[in-house]
Amino acid sequence: MNKPSAIVVGVGAEQGLGGALCRRFAAEGYHVIVAGRTLAKIAKVSDAITASGGSAEAVETDATDEGAAVSLFENAFAPREGIDPPDLVVFNAGINRNIAFREVSAAQFEEFWRVCCLGGFLVGREAARHLAPLGRGTVIFTGASASLRGKAGFAQFASAKAGLRMISQSMAREFGPLGIHVAHTIIDGGIDGERLRMGRPGAVAAMGENGLLHIDAIADTYWHIHRQHPSAWTQEIDLRPFKESF
Amino acid sequence: MNKPSAIVVGVGAEQGLGGALCRRFAAEGYHVIVAGRTLAKIAKVSDAITASGGSAEAVETDATDEGAAVSLFENAFAPREGIDPPDLVVFNAGINRNIAFREVSAAQFEEFWRVCCLGGFLVGREAARHLAPLGRGTVIFTGASASLRGKAGFAQFASAKAGLRMISQSMAREFGPLGIHVAHTIIDGGIDGERLRMGRPGAVAAMGENGLLHIDAIADTYWHIHRQHPSAWTQEIDLRPFKESF
Amino acid sequence: MNKPSAIVVGVGAEQGLGGALCRRFAAEGYHVIVAGRTLAKIAKVSDAITASGGSAEAVETDATDEGAAVSLFENAFAPREGIDPPDLVVFNAGINRNIAFREVSAAQFEEFWRVCCLGGFLVGREAARHLAPLGRGTVIFTGASASLRGKAGFAQFASAKAGLRMISQSMAREFGPLGIHVAHTIIDGGIDGERLRMGRPGAVAAMGENGLLHIDAIADTYWHIHRQHPSAWTQEIDLRPFKESF
Amino acid sequence: MNKPSAIVVGVGAEQGLGGALCRRFAAEGYHVIVAGRTLAKIAKVSDAITASGGSAEAVETDATDEGAAVSLFENAFAPREGIDPPDLVVFNAGINRNIAFREVSAAQFEEFWRVCCLGGFLVGREAARHLAPLGRGTVIFTGASASLRGKAGFAQFASAKAGLRMISQSMAREFGPLGIHVAHTIIDGGIDGERLRMGRPGAVAAMGENGLLHIDAIADTYWHIHRQHPSAWTQEIDLRPFKESF
Repeated sequence: MNKPSAIVVGVGAEQGLGGALCRRFAAEGYHVIVAGRTLAKIAKVSDAITASGGSAEAVETDATDEGAAVSLFENAFAPREGIDPPDLVVFNAGINRNIAFREVSAAQFEEFWRVCCLGGFLVGREAARHLAPLGRGTVIFTGASASLRGKAGFAQFASAKAGLRMISQSMAREFGPLGIHVAHTIIDGGIDGERLRMGRPGAVAAMGENGLLHIDAIADTYWHIHRQHPSAWTQEIDLRPFKESF
Repeated sequence: MNKPSAIVVGVGAEQGLGGALCRRFAAEGYHVIVAGRTLAKIAKVSDAITASGGSAEAVETDATDEGAAVSLFENAFAPREGIDPPDLVVFNAGINRNIAFREVSAAQFEEFWRVCCLGGFLVGREAARHLAPLGRGTVIFTGASASLRGKAGFAQFASAKAGLRMISQSMAREFGPLGIHVAHTIIDGGIDGERLRMGRPGAVAAMGENGLLHIDAIADTYWHIHRQHPSAWTQEIDLRPFKESF
Repeated sequence: MNKPSAIVVGVGAEQGLGGALCRRFAAEGYHVIVAGRTLAKIAKVSDAITASGGSAEAVETDATDEGAAVSLFENAFAPREGIDPPDLVVFNAGINRNIAFREVSAAQFEEFWRVCCLGGFLVGREAARHLAPLGRGTVIFTGASASLRGKAGFAQFASAKAGLRMISQSMAREFGPLGIHVAHTIIDGGIDGERLRMGRPGAVAAMGENGLLHIDAIADTYWHIHRQHPSAWTQEIDLRPFKESF
Repeated sequence: MNKPSAIVVGVGAEQGLGGALCRRFAAEGYHVIVAGRTLAKIAKVSDAITASGGSAEAVETDATDEGAAVSLFENAFAPREGIDPPDLVVFNAGINRNIAFREVSAAQFEEFWRVCCLGGFLVGREAARHLAPLGRGTVIFTGASASLRGKAGFAQFASAKAGLRMISQSMAREFGPLGIHVAHTIIDGGIDGERLRMGRPGAVAAMGENGLLHIDAIADTYWHIHRQHPSAWTQEIDLRPFKESF
């Protein structure tokens, strides 16, 4: 029997959400295509999975490049010995930073859009192109509270994330009836991963126990979404630490 | 070791969402308090659980009555041999019907509010009173697409359901930081249960396979919500059949 | 030529939103039916309008009583010398108070619903019954930020206000195509009126200039909504002081 | 006494929303800077205003170009004989087209974003840079129902429009307290202008009287927003024909 397979786009630090998603899918028996911009990072995630008996491969990809996105999916969906074509795709790439509105350059605004939104569009489109003929599969986009709401200092992030959310909605309405489950998560809070632990250790400590989202806990819900029965699919779900004010 | 326990308020037909929730929680090892207005119906659900080796009891309750709601929770939280106090409460009661706006009487409008909203408030309040001192527990309210949006013919339903949603949000913001997980579901579509199968068999057939929400599939997500890690809780989630337009 | 006429339900203190709406409509040449629960208050509003050359009458009404709501509209729409039947109806009644969720009694929860929601339903229904045959008219409901969002301490208010909002949406979808303009306002901030000035003078002072919504400024937007061309009607609009955080 | 002035970015056909806004502001006594990509079109709008006794100038601008946006505002805010610096800025540019999701190229997706979102960011940023030091002014962004909701065939449009909406929200939260009124409109329906009348005459006829938004009616609400008192500002408002289903 073949292994099912998954593509996770936007994997960075080993202790980040992308890495946790890869590990979880591998633990569920999936062959995981670990895609990200930095080979050293994704190789670490992929190697750790293989070392613990799972199946994974690292694919260096810039998802904001149309050709790269097309290749990633063509390769992933090419016939492979012992591995089924992917039925689970996650777009998890993103960057974030607080910038006073009047200081945001056109180049910065564009960079946020390329990473958070255009990349999501390309991944979503390629997923749709390959999954629609098969009539099955799950595509999950990682969103944030900024996907719903613009705040001072975050126009560049909220604008890109809201744009990503609309891609997920448009896809859900077009491809749901064709059997493709398209979901969008609202991560409302800090993620307890390498980025925050290294970058803002004081803030992490201040949040206390379970004050940041555990990456394995998030992965648990992504897995649940993928496993939902087609009669009861989720399009949008929020996830936040119990003590997060909202 | 004690059994954990759950309260499900708003259980009707055996093949309805309330019944499915009870069966699922029992299958997960819970003692289930099956609460509803019609003893014959809830006894059937409870008996079936017991017959298949589970643990359940039927409690005839009108959740729209303050005294009855208070008693239900007092009894459920009273010390019991071998059973822990509830850590999972679901409010699932509701009625629905299309009525031209100008024909809705004050009495009808009030009835919808009593069943869909006041009952939810009383169940939520009693749950909060008993769970807050314990600092743990999950409370889930069953909502609908009408919770978000009023449509012609459904003012009485949407008004009550939107009111219920605000109870869940107010509770989440007040009790989340105290360790109580309060969630609200948006059921967007018809439920594949006795009510529709008996009442509108033609409509059910017309929806085709998986065109209505399977009650066990919904129960699967309720169980997932209950099991979420406190660092990554869901407050609101939608559930709809893959082919439902939205 | 006849005077046009308007009904404002939920008029209290002279320096409150209800009073300001009455004065504005009278200033625009309307005969205004000033409806509220306390005769002394509404008579003051009505007398002031008459004294300054406008046309108004005070009608003591409990809008939460079905019979009273029916009578109010029957009288207002009865043929009158020199006055056209109303083409503008505002539901502006409401109460508010912060109560810890566990302390809210069923009676309190119900009172909020009766005043903020049931009254709105009855006014909306009677307006629809009388306006639909005429194929014209405007109905405006006064909402609040709580109409969109439940907060700790405000479950009773948010629940009732969200219920009112759904009435406005259901009505808009059913009666818009019949020529009736149904709108809902989101008042997000404190209103600079008698209630706050008497009840919380310190808070008022702390807000500074234009930190609270001026009642005449709100009335200005209600009037604009009423005057909108049928090709460009507003269903929902928010109003908040420039410095209000949201 | 000096004339106040306004900038309208995104003016195309004379009988389009941009043109109507220019005419309305001119009729209110404003000097209007008519900005758009096609000199022939904006000159027509500007000339007609001048011919009827108003004050206007056409400025050929590609608002998606950072340098061009910077120049547009520098020139508009440079000291001028008899004209005050602008206190009213509208971003009205946009394109729309239904494209099956799998057929959208990266270049198309980017073009929608450049016109509908990046241009809005640059106009918003330049407006903020010039207005914040003055502590006054209004900035209005033209949105659509797609700003709130992604549909099949409109991912490229909804994504860009939702991104624009977040710019307006982020700006409102940062600059409202500094005295700048930032608003966003949701135009829900077809606009009764040259674009539809020429491109889809059959569809226009089918909508019947007032089935499309009249451009002057929309302009009426933009003007109202600009005139709102700072204690009661609108951030978001929807506008739709009375018979539009929503």
